[in-house]
Amino acid sequence: MVLVSPRNPLNIGAAARAMANFGFQRLTVVAPFAANWREARSAIGAPELLLNAVESPSLADAVADCAFVVGTGTLTSRKPEQKVVPLPELAPLVVRELARGGRVALVFGSEKHGLTREDLSYCHLLVEIPTDPGQPSMNLGQAVAVCLYELATRAFHAPEAPSSEPATLVPSAPPAATSSHLELLAGVIEETMVAAGYSPRTMQAANRHDLRLMLRRLALSAHDTRRMLGLFRRILWRLKRAPASGHKPD
Amino acid sequence: MVLVSPRNPLNIGAAARAMANFGFQRLTVVAPFAANWREARSAIGAPELLLNAVESPSLADAVADCAFVVGTGTLTSRKPEQKVVPLPELAPLVVRELARGGRVALVFGSEKHGLTREDLSYCHLLVEIPTDPGQPSMNLGQAVAVCLYELATRAFHAPEAPSSEPATLVPSAPPAATSSHLELLAGVIEETMVAAGYSPRTMQAANRHDLRLMLRRLALSAHDTRRMLGLFRRILWRLKRAPASGHKPD
Repeated sequence: MVLVSPRNPLNIGAAARAMANFGFQRLTVVAPFAANWREARSAIGAPELLLNAVESPSLADAVADCAFVVGTGTLTSRKPEQKVVPLPELAPLVVRELARGGRVALVFGSEKHGLTREDLSYCHLLVEIPTDPGQPSMNLGQAVAVCLYELATRAFHAPEAPSSEPATLVPSAPPAATSSHLELLAGVIEETMVAAGYSPRTMQAANRHDLRLMLRRLALSAHDTRRMLGLFRRILWRLKRAPASGHKPD
Repeated sequence: MVLVSPRNPLNIGAAARAMANFGFQRLTVVAPFAANWREARSAIGAPELLLNAVESPSLADAVADCAFVVGTGTLTSRKPEQKVVPLPELAPLVVRELARGGRVALVFGSEKHGLTREDLSYCHLLVEIPTDPGQPSMNLGQAVAVCLYELATRAFHAPEAPSSEPATLVPSAPPAATSSHLELLAGVIEETMVAAGYSPRTMQAANRHDLRLMLRRLALSAHDTRRMLGLFRRILWRLKRAPASGHKPD
């Protein structure tokens, strides 16, 4: 589980407690506010996993080894660019990903403004807790508890086949690419765009964002990613050798 | 929803917020600690339903008009006397009760010691959130959020038939007795026990407790309850007329 820049020490403690309640271990905190983070960890009765939490400078680092990154939040104020799934439908997707051998990350934004557009570009999928339109915004600790309850009971300890598409049907699916592989590929493609004169300077940030989203939407396997990386490295090498004139390299 | 003697104003606020998030309206607070209750209600951003909450001197009063009372809590320290159901299996039972036209109450104990044995004797069923044995005890606000999420998504707004026993199969089930009717019946039966010399003074509290539990286990309909009440009133009348000797009245 990943918390991005949480503010309130009570919320950090509550999130960690919910993790302990539902048997989750690995907590990463991205760019926490130092004083609040110190206070949360020094609270009486702080769960072990809070003391063992990893600090990470960026969300990209935090999810580098994850093959399936799920962002959370109420999405009232902006139109999301990824697929949005209601929480009750998340478990089968997580089960399928775990069956492929990939690590799954569940990402929560700060209390103040949730996940930013930049944060969301690292997510393969967004999950929404179905709340009342009159009061859609949940407290962070409670949102964490609800999400982890759902996954603990319906993805990890499901008493019987929890979905119409049980994990045993997809044992042959190849392992998915991790976030760090996708970032590497995105970097090389971006460099290629620039080298090919496709991406003018003013469009580079927007193109980078769209590229990140697209690569996650494609659900590339680790093998696909390696192959594309080889291709684009080759193209890039040729582009850089070719003279910067209008004609294409052959 | 009923909170019995909650202590922490932040928890009261969090419980109310979760109710608003999941579209629940009616909050009753039993014997709150006056100062904490005042503080919770005067908090900035307190949801409307907290201001409209009903205060009740006892749990018996709070659930008087309810036909199905569900107690919550982790039951590690004592062996419960009622049926215990894991939270993921609660929704179909609630759907069935609502289809019969009965009111359902979900009852949470205080943070300190949960529901007492006396509180539990007013419950038809106990529900347990499946938590990790290493850290079974949940924060009150988070436990409320998890329970209400489960009911909101799987009992009230279930997208399709949520259970193998849909509500439409039981439209002819008669309305269940409310808690206040059961209390009335328990009172008359108890009086009868005493009048008949069945319940010696030292056993009266224990017998009362067992009787309360038994009446809830029987799942009496409103009609059953009225009939039994009539019978025991008649018996009682005869017992009181009869001389207090050993022979039975005919």
